[in-house]
Amino acid sequence: MPRAASMPVELAEAWQKVSRQVDEVLAARLPAVEDSPAGRLYEAMRYSALAPGKRLRPLLVVLAGQSCRAYRPERRPLLLVAGAAVEMVHTYSLIHDDLPAMDNDDLRRGLPTCHRQFDEATAILAGDALQAQAFQILSGEDFAPGVGARLGRILSHAAGGGGMVGGQAMDLWCEGHPDRSIDLATLRQLHERKTGAVIAACLAMGGAVAGAEPDEEAALTEYGRNVGLGFQVVDDILDVTADSATLGKTAGKDQRSGKATYVSLLGLDEARREAARLHEAAIAALGDLGQRAEPLRQLARFLVGRAF
Amino acid sequence: MPRAASMPVELAEAWQKVSRQVDEVLAARLPAVEDSPAGRLYEAMRYSALAPGKRLRPLLVVLAGQSCRAYRPERRPLLLVAGAAVEMVHTYSLIHDDLPAMDNDDLRRGLPTCHRQFDEATAILAGDALQAQAFQILSGEDFAPGVGARLGRILSHAAGGGGMVGGQAMDLWCEGHPDRSIDLATLRQLHERKTGAVIAACLAMGGAVAGAEPDEEAALTEYGRNVGLGFQVVDDILDVTADSATLGKTAGKDQRSGKATYVSLLGLDEARREAARLHEAAIAALGDLGQRAEPLRQLARFLVGRAF
Repeated sequence: MPRAASMPVELAEAWQKVSRQVDEVLAARLPAVEDSPAGRLYEAMRYSALAPGKRLRPLLVVLAGQSCRAYRPERRPLLLVAGAAVEMVHTYSLIHDDLPAMDNDDLRRGLPTCHRQFDEATAILAGDALQAQAFQILSGEDFAPGVGARLGRILSHAAGGGGMVGGQAMDLWCEGHPDRSIDLATLRQLHERKTGAVIAACLAMGGAVAGAEPDEEAALTEYGRNVGLGFQVVDDILDVTADSATLGKTAGKDQRSGKATYVSLLGLDEARREAARLHEAAIAALGDLGQRAEPLRQLARFLVGRAF
Repeated sequence: MPRAASMPVELAEAWQKVSRQVDEVLAARLPAVEDSPAGRLYEAMRYSALAPGKRLRPLLVVLAGQSCRAYRPERRPLLLVAGAAVEMVHTYSLIHDDLPAMDNDDLRRGLPTCHRQFDEATAILAGDALQAQAFQILSGEDFAPGVGARLGRILSHAAGGGGMVGGQAMDLWCEGHPDRSIDLATLRQLHERKTGAVIAACLAMGGAVAGAEPDEEAALTEYGRNVGLGFQVVDDILDVTADSATLGKTAGKDQRSGKATYVSLLGLDEARREAARLHEAAIAALGDLGQRAEPLRQLARFLVGRAF
């Protein structure tokens, strides 16, 4: 088990390639900035979606697809399109989470947040339009209708009230109310919804595009569940141990606001042990997938392993 | 051409029936309020979506479906499910439009707006979750994959940056800037996007569920385009001529804020003549659809005819 972050060069190269390619898909699919009263909206959508993000979710979609026995290279463009749709949903959630009525953040992906760069109304609308566009892509001509409906179902389920948005609502409820005692089960549910659900959806979507068989689908889902939760635990840890420049967003914010996190509930050491347990479970889930799943193993090691 | 609003009793009964049935679908499909930190989100979603709205969009979906030659009564439940999805998108747009950063409205559907009844963050999230849930329904088990993908494509296109959200962005750009000269073509584009696009989508969705043939699809789309635009012209007229109690929202607001409307650009009389022209075009579009389309004709007369 690694004690420090390490990324094999082949994973780094694969990640860079996905990142570059998904940026191309995003640039092509986002509305062009036009000289019209709606032009500012399109500018805001492009500003936030094309900001230098990690593109972790598209990477997960692509690696999940490539880990399936039925994967063929001609499916890669479709994996990238599905990854771009997830990235649009992820971007919209960041824009809305950053709003003054929510986290009121000024910095995101190393740049001013959307409502600081434009204005609050434009930021709300840019988020709304990005969500619509994600589902427009998944229901569009790229995918066979059965696959498109499947992808739409997975993503809408993970992103909606029972998933990401529900997790954000739980987060707001907890935040700044240290009088409300949050137990570990509630915190875990919060994280599973807020971040874990869409991460797990990436794995399922990659499998759906590639034609995963049931055993592969189950393995990918279990991996996604553990990496998704582990990723959030690590996020909580890094909020305490890293600086704003490294994170590309304001560090130490959770701690200052007195919000419940894995670190505040468990302490830093036990939070690190929890990350280690989730890492192990993610690796175990991929047991039968063989060499094709090696990039996913390396990624889990990098994502979750860097915190312990 | 009618000089006053009149609604035939059979249309009134059909509308009431759709309204009751779509409320049942909404109540069943919206997340149940649970005793969890996310419970407040679900409460807000239900509060806004189940508020006494006109349910015009579900009615349009149902009447469009029933006007098709291939329509069979067993398709009615599917028309209602598609109508409920559109109503969720419509409700989310009202919640977000009412926010302090946008129209800053206190009253909607005769009740306090979502952010007044709950809080701003909850209102933003309730809108986000309602949009996700609409696409969850359309990509779900109710529809054959081909039909579901078609419905998702129609609605996401109409609701996104090129449609409803783009229209709202144009509206914000124009609003409160009387120095920006808006010509009639720009105002028309604004209305076509902001309100017209989703209205027209209702007609197309009803046709898609019922199995419309190309001539029917073209007729429904043309009808929807004209009724959608006419509906907005009438909205502008009623803002000037009706009171808040009748509207269920604050009246006279456009006029006070100095925002460009059909009435401010054309004057009340010419706006009424424009409504009459659009009404005529909507009726003409249904020329070949025969008796099955009679409820759509009656509805156009009621919606657009009441303003001239």
